[in-house]
Amino acid sequence: MDVVVPHDVDQDAFNILKEKEKNYAQELQRSGKWRHLWRIAGQYQNVSIFDVSSVQELHDLLSGLPLFPYLKHEVTALCRHPSSIHDDDR
Amino acid sequence: MDVVVPHDVDQDAFNILKEKEKNYAQELQRSGKWRHLWRIAGQYQNVSIFDVSSVQELHDLLSGLPLFPYLKHEVTALCRHPSSIHDDDR
Amino acid sequence: MDVVVPHDVDQDAFNILKEKEKNYAQELQRSGKWRHLWRIAGQYQNVSIFDVSSVQELHDLLSGLPLFPYLKHEVTALCRHPSSIHDDDR
Amino acid sequence: MDVVVPHDVDQDAFNILKEKEKNYAQELQRSGKWRHLWRIAGQYQNVSIFDVSSVQELHDLLSGLPLFPYLKHEVTALCRHPSSIHDDDR
Amino acid sequence: MDVVVPHDVDQDAFNILKEKEKNYAQELQRSGKWRHLWRIAGQYQNVSIFDVSSVQELHDLLSGLPLFPYLKHEVTALCRHPSSIHDDDR
Amino acid sequence: MDVVVPHDVDQDAFNILKEKEKNYAQELQRSGKWRHLWRIAGQYQNVSIFDVSSVQELHDLLSGLPLFPYLKHEVTALCRHPSSIHDDDR
Amino acid sequence: MDVVVPHDVDQDAFNILKEKEKNYAQELQRSGKWRHLWRIAGQYQNVSIFDVSSVQELHDLLSGLPLFPYLKHEVTALCRHPSSIHDDDR
Amino acid sequence: MDVVVPHDVDQDAFNILKEKEKNYAQELQRSGKWRHLWRIAGQYQNVSIFDVSSVQELHDLLSGLPLFPYLKHEVTALCRHPSSIHDDDR
Amino acid sequence: MDVVVPHDVDQDAFNILKEKEKNYAQELQRSGKWRHLWRIAGQYQNVSIFDVSSVQELHDLLSGLPLFPYLKHEVTALCRHPSSIHDDDR
Amino acid sequence: MDVVVPHDVDQDAFNILKEKEKNYAQELQRSGKWRHLWRIAGQYQNVSIFDVSSVQELHDLLSGLPLFPYLKHEVTALCRHPSSIHDDDR
Repeated sequence: MDVVVPHDVDQDAFNILKEKEKNYAQELQRSGKWRHLWRIAGQYQNVSIFDVSSVQELHDLLSGLPLFPYLKHEVTALCRHPSSIHDDDR
Repeated sequence: MDVVVPHDVDQDAFNILKEKEKNYAQELQRSGKWRHLWRIAGQYQNVSIFDVSSVQELHDLLSGLPLFPYLKHEVTALCRHPSSIHDDDR
Repeated sequence: MDVVVPHDVDQDAFNILKEKEKNYAQELQRSGKWRHLWRIAGQYQNVSIFDVSSVQELHDLLSGLPLFPYLKHEVTALCRHPSSIHDDDR
Repeated sequence: MDVVVPHDVDQDAFNILKEKEKNYAQELQRSGKWRHLWRIAGQYQNVSIFDVSSVQELHDLLSGLPLFPYLKHEVTALCRHPSSIHDDDR
Repeated sequence: MDVVVPHDVDQDAFNILKEKEKNYAQELQRSGKWRHLWRIAGQYQNVSIFDVSSVQELHDLLSGLPLFPYLKHEVTALCRHPSSIHDDDR
Repeated sequence: MDVVVPHDVDQDAFNILKEKEKNYAQELQRSGKWRHLWRIAGQYQNVSIFDVSSVQELHDLLSGLPLFPYLKHEVTALCRHPSSIHDDDR
Repeated sequence: MDVVVPHDVDQDAFNILKEKEKNYAQELQRSGKWRHLWRIAGQYQNVSIFDVSSVQELHDLLSGLPLFPYLKHEVTALCRHPSSIHDDDR
Repeated sequence: MDVVVPHDVDQDAFNILKEKEKNYAQELQRSGKWRHLWRIAGQYQNVSIFDVSSVQELHDLLSGLPLFPYLKHEVTALCRHPSSIHDDDR
Repeated sequence: MDVVVPHDVDQDAFNILKEKEKNYAQELQRSGKWRHLWRIAGQYQNVSIFDVSSVQELHDLLSGLPLFPYLKHEVTALCRHPSSIHDDDR
Repeated sequence: MDVVVPHDVDQDAFNILKEKEKNYAQELQRSGKWRHLWRIAGQYQNVSIFDVSSVQELHDLLSGLPLFPYLKHEVTALCRHPSSIHDDDR
């Protein structure tokens, strides 16, 4: 996920969106659906791993992000690797 | 990591390499350095998360992969995201 | 899916693979998992729509294709569009 | 089809366009010309299959979309795949 | 259309294919289906305009090219431009 | 040629430019210099074939287009294909 | 690092940012963390080498750049080359 | 510099080339012309900084690399950055 | 060099810049540093050959162009070709 | 022009081709049709300027190059720049 902020955006309104985004992200992490969240070093971007039961659930989750109109991201479907020893890497 | 196999490779020698690769990967997972390993759906590719103490250690680890000569991969430096609630996502 | 055939491949062995591929594809179409299959005009490529219950099932299905070692393809996760009127476009 | 919305667009006027787009899309689906409509998971994009009798008809249909000025899309010509068992996948 | 010739191809067999290709191309030009054929300056490539009654006919025509296994090409659907004054540019 | 229209352009002034563009294009078609003009299906783009006596003439012709400041286009030099049977495809 | 300046930015405010950027860069160079800084010839871009003890430190350093909102850059992890004779190239 | 090794290369001859490459690189480092040499983490690639008195000298130096036929690299012209405090970063 | 002009730029101020650019370019041509200057046919772009004694001189020359903030360009280092017969192509 | 040499090419036959290429290039330079020829620093590539009276002549000239089957190149049409002071830059 890459957050692209137009340089003439209203900074106050944007800060409120960022606060909402943080709350939304932490709630989903607590529920177990947003499994991992890393910052890409030196960028306003992140790498996230979601654990959802359907493609529809993933779409609802992502399009519900408060910063969704400013996000540019790619979705890659992952599954269990035969050499993985971790039960969670499914 | 994308594994690119030339179509005229010696299949027996390649299977031996794949077995070595699996052992190497599982040993590094048990040591905690290879933190996550996922298969990209429908591809002979994976997404991996490493937890190393230096760039040098990452290089030694990757160039030691038995399938290294057949790998095409990208390295992205990750760090802790300020909104993450997981202690492990550092 | 783009089928990339090395020009020095054994033509007889390849024809047997193509026949197996056709049987495999038609069996999956009859089961309902391979929902649509179109030829891209003028290319040795196709566009396919799969209806699977998990990412794992999609991976097993695709990596089981007899021509898998010669395929170069992309996977895009689709879900129901709010403006769709067709029950099947989920 | 990727819908690219400038961040300083008039939101009310845009919502009216989206409503018109939905009606236009559903009318064409009922007529059989817009055969399939899927949402790409996590994106403001869709994948659509049209069944038209000429290239001209496709052009008139697409350039008539109320959101046409905001669309960025690619057109791929499809035809029947020799391995397809579905009469509709032509 | 870009013709990609592996450097270790059998030159005699390839010359026979090129002769067949020329005959096939000229027959289709005489029938009116292959409307225009230009060489891209300095390249072993061409730009062609086909006039077909269906996508299926285009696919059969292209996949029937004797050099088809060595071609890398793109298909773009064209139709009449509202500012064109030529009856043939449909 | 791809016409890129900024979404906040003055619509009346732009419509006048489009009318001038149409007249300019039709005049050049009548003179024989603008040999072919096709619409790319589903896009605000065209494919054009020019027949000019020098590179300088092509540049003057293109930079004289009323919509030139809004055009994004590529120029490909074409010449006679040895397999062409049409006297005009030079 | 490529500095992308919107053409309608407030020039005075931007000049203040550039001055802050210069001070910040020189302080980090004196501390030894910003090891090298070159201008790419003919571009408003630079190539920089950082010497940090963790990915987190690199992220904090880069996101603290006064011009960070206007930067487009890539991060490449480097380590000691076995053929290097310079102790500093680690 | 990216070293691309064909998988069917003669391994002994290649090892001799690699040894020559190392000697050549270290000699140029001692002369001061090859200023920096880093390994890109996890890749068979490096980033190098050369200090030459002309473009011709750079070309002679690079085309003289024993592994030159197997290298794929890009050259970027660098000069002194106005904010640099290091005399060597010229 | 590609000149990218924002569509809402002040046209009078921009024309003054273009006039300054022309004078600057012609002065450098007379000095022998700007060796060749061609227009790319049909584009607001040029191809230029500079003859400078250092990378620093090239950077100063390019960043001094009155239209520099609107330029998008690439720099390629050239040197004498062993098959060239022209003394000037160095 | 980028010369791509397969690593298993017959070296003697290739050296004969290179000698022929050099003679062909120098003959065309003497005739004035091959106006400039530069080496791209550090690459087995060149930048060339041709002065031909038609697109057909350019195609015949390029496809007649002894190394043509190993070349990968792009053709850009150039013409006189209004700010050029050199009579030859046409």
